[in-house]
Amino acid sequence: MSTERQARLEIVSLGKMLHDRGYVAATDGNLSVRLDKRHILATPTAMSKGALRPSDLVKVDMEGNLVAGRHHVSSEIAMHLLIYKLRPEVGGIVHAHPPTATGFAAAGLALDQPLVCEVVIGLGSIPLAKYGTPGTPELAETLKPLVSKYDAILMSNHGVVTYGETLSYAYMKMETVEHFAQIALVTHLLGRQQPLRDEALEKLLLARSKYEGTRSAAPLPVADFYGPNNGSRQPRRKPESAVPKRTPAVKIKP
Amino acid sequence: MSTERQARLEIVSLGKMLHDRGYVAATDGNLSVRLDKRHILATPTAMSKGALRPSDLVKVDMEGNLVAGRHHVSSEIAMHLLIYKLRPEVGGIVHAHPPTATGFAAAGLALDQPLVCEVVIGLGSIPLAKYGTPGTPELAETLKPLVSKYDAILMSNHGVVTYGETLSYAYMKMETVEHFAQIALVTHLLGRQQPLRDEALEKLLLARSKYEGTRSAAPLPVADFYGPNNGSRQPRRKPESAVPKRTPAVKIKP
Amino acid sequence: MSTERQARLEIVSLGKMLHDRGYVAATDGNLSVRLDKRHILATPTAMSKGALRPSDLVKVDMEGNLVAGRHHVSSEIAMHLLIYKLRPEVGGIVHAHPPTATGFAAAGLALDQPLVCEVVIGLGSIPLAKYGTPGTPELAETLKPLVSKYDAILMSNHGVVTYGETLSYAYMKMETVEHFAQIALVTHLLGRQQPLRDEALEKLLLARSKYEGTRSAAPLPVADFYGPNNGSRQPRRKPESAVPKRTPAVKIKP
Amino acid sequence: MSTERQARLEIVSLGKMLHDRGYVAATDGNLSVRLDKRHILATPTAMSKGALRPSDLVKVDMEGNLVAGRHHVSSEIAMHLLIYKLRPEVGGIVHAHPPTATGFAAAGLALDQPLVCEVVIGLGSIPLAKYGTPGTPELAETLKPLVSKYDAILMSNHGVVTYGETLSYAYMKMETVEHFAQIALVTHLLGRQQPLRDEALEKLLLARSKYEGTRSAAPLPVADFYGPNNGSRQPRRKPESAVPKRTPAVKIKP
Repeated sequence: MSTERQARLEIVSLGKMLHDRGYVAATDGNLSVRLDKRHILATPTAMSKGALRPSDLVKVDMEGNLVAGRHHVSSEIAMHLLIYKLRPEVGGIVHAHPPTATGFAAAGLALDQPLVCEVVIGLGSIPLAKYGTPGTPELAETLKPLVSKYDAILMSNHGVVTYGETLSYAYMKMETVEHFAQIALVTHLLGRQQPLRDEALEKLLLARSKYEGTRSAAPLPVADFYGPNNGSRQPRRKPESAVPKRTPAVKIKP
Repeated sequence: MSTERQARLEIVSLGKMLHDRGYVAATDGNLSVRLDKRHILATPTAMSKGALRPSDLVKVDMEGNLVAGRHHVSSEIAMHLLIYKLRPEVGGIVHAHPPTATGFAAAGLALDQPLVCEVVIGLGSIPLAKYGTPGTPELAETLKPLVSKYDAILMSNHGVVTYGETLSYAYMKMETVEHFAQIALVTHLLGRQQPLRDEALEKLLLARSKYEGTRSAAPLPVADFYGPNNGSRQPRRKPESAVPKRTPAVKIKP
Repeated sequence: MSTERQARLEIVSLGKMLHDRGYVAATDGNLSVRLDKRHILATPTAMSKGALRPSDLVKVDMEGNLVAGRHHVSSEIAMHLLIYKLRPEVGGIVHAHPPTATGFAAAGLALDQPLVCEVVIGLGSIPLAKYGTPGTPELAETLKPLVSKYDAILMSNHGVVTYGETLSYAYMKMETVEHFAQIALVTHLLGRQQPLRDEALEKLLLARSKYEGTRSAAPLPVADFYGPNNGSRQPRRKPESAVPKRTPAVKIKP
Repeated sequence: MSTERQARLEIVSLGKMLHDRGYVAATDGNLSVRLDKRHILATPTAMSKGALRPSDLVKVDMEGNLVAGRHHVSSEIAMHLLIYKLRPEVGGIVHAHPPTATGFAAAGLALDQPLVCEVVIGLGSIPLAKYGTPGTPELAETLKPLVSKYDAILMSNHGVVTYGETLSYAYMKMETVEHFAQIALVTHLLGRQQPLRDEALEKLLLARSKYEGTRSAAPLPVADFYGPNNGSRQPRRKPESAVPKRTPAVKIKP
């Protein structure tokens, strides 16, 4: 939790960063911070995240009612409230559309290959939630089965949501998702993946517990990766309707 | 409509943004604002949009005659005047060559797959106008059949034009076009698209009417997408000479 | 020709722009300005173009001897001197390694498809010079057959050189080369090119004479493009040893 | 060696540059400077390289023990210490995850094709170290066979490390690695490489000794490139377990 003034400045500054990096276009995306047990500070609807002022933000209660602010509440607030309810330790949430990761989400593909060790340490794998219409309760419903296990989720035909102890950690996870999507795309273009194997993953998950960078109360499972497609050119395809049913291949040994 | 001074500053600032983001190279592109019923403020010919001063702009009448300014009028002003005439609510226009979207326009492909929900909400789909020689009346002619239905148009072998109630909305639509082109290209590189289907699109178009971000008097139709190529690796190919003849698959239910 | 002080500031500022845009890495690239009939101001060897000061530049005579400056002259000065000798109207030269265009140059491919009308207007097509060892007279030799006809040249396994009436025009042509390479790559990734055809090119070259943006004394020929590969997925391949022998398909009708 | 104050400012400034360019996400990467024979100044663990202050840095001895600083030492310090020990002339080290080069490292591919002359001059070729778990001595072990011969190394499923006489030279080599990876990827996407051949490479390596930009005590060998795959679409594949065993094809003739 932050003081409200700090939180306003941080939302404005990280919103500008999202825009500068091309993670949002037009009025895409939203950011929020948990101020106290009953209040959330969030970006309003229909404004560019690249040019917000601290006074543009809206303050809502845990049912999404406007408590303070001169703009309208985004209909995507429901997604934020769901995450704050299911993950009591979460203090900040970022939703954006970074183009490479959103390309995976529009292709129906999770980012679940253990290709880069620091992504496995920081996020485990990044699942794909099924599609839900924005501006309706469907959207939050699609995230529900995934929020407790993961800190970053691809949203089909939509974008990405990340969250953490602070807004700053949530923002950094968004960077990791897009950065990893770029790396995964390069391996796909090169026609070859060399994913980490069982033994390497086990060591890595052991190491994970020692990393200060990892501040998550979630298990962040690594996907069940080891199939016959390992190293092949084609990414594995998900059934279009499915919420990925993962049985984590490797458990963290605390 | 804006005060002229505001309009000058906004054109300079968004022109620099186009250049910083790589949406224009050299002296590419142009921006304009409708000052009043008889006057348009526009960028002059042959200057980089990255280094304009407010005094560099030209003021023209609705026939494109220079009214004020020390530089020459761009021959592309005809395209702007056409749009202002056909769309009385439009207050600002941006023409640029964002590289991914221009790649689609040079490949003869519209950006008409419903891959990302917020693009469907904001723009419907983005059609491809046939080629017309710049600096001639041909160019405006190719846009004529599309201007009333769409807010963003790909121009074959040329670039993109977007327009809106204000210059700022026009600029944000340009961001959306390039951002969506990047996402669509990623899905193509991954060899797989998972487009939104009938039911999802109907719900989305219903939701569209509620979105404050959408400020358009145009129908913004979604392309007739559902063909046998759905989900296949190859984008559908347009006959090279065709203005896309669209029968919108889904109407907005107001 | 510029005053020396202006020229120093402009080289520093455009050098920083090359670096900011990723057109050079490490100490890559060089820029120069013709000060008067006997003197060239140029960037020195072995310094990043992103952090030059005006006093870092070197002044050389038309044989490349150091006349003023505390750093060493780049061995690539020979390329600059050749261009200044063959093109008396040229006032500024930029050499850089923009990554997409340099990728074409490392693949042995010219940027010679008429895919974007404003590139045809501004540069005609962009030929590929054969490889010459940097730091030797070979390098200038490979450019000799191309300098009088073109304003921008790809250098095999090396980079790009552009030049114009002023350094600012030379720099803008560098932007156009990389921007066009990005567009051409996107069409290649989409598996489809829709190049401009004979009639369209003739109209365009007529229009070219009217464009103020075009300030070149060179013919800027459009490549002989119309072959059986037209529109096919594969770019045409050049014999590896060849300097492209072009018979311009379309002459400018003045 | 630098004064400590200069070194602090330089680490902060080049750390921000790594982040601005997208070479690191979240808290990825680390930088260090050799202060004197017994002390290294380094970035601490778990902080974004985009927002460091000079006082955030940690000072360690040659065994990695914290000597000064209020943050924790990164577990990757072992990699830095190894390089400082094996290469006494090295004054600065940069470790980052630039996305294109890291894509090659996650695909199991070295950057060893002589496609761009200035990369051959500056780095020779860029080998791929086998994978080692971060936070364990394994990581430094994988680098050991490569450190004395190369100035830039891809680390499997991880990222890149570069080093030089000063931190600034180390940083410039990181730029070169990512820039070259982008160029190499473009040639791969175009389906064609036109690598430098024997004669050209010999001349180039002769020229290398004259370049002031090259400040390395290492041989920087060019990979044994000339195989039957030369110019083919597929990059050569490495056996997954192998440390590349290189027999330099061309020796520098001093």
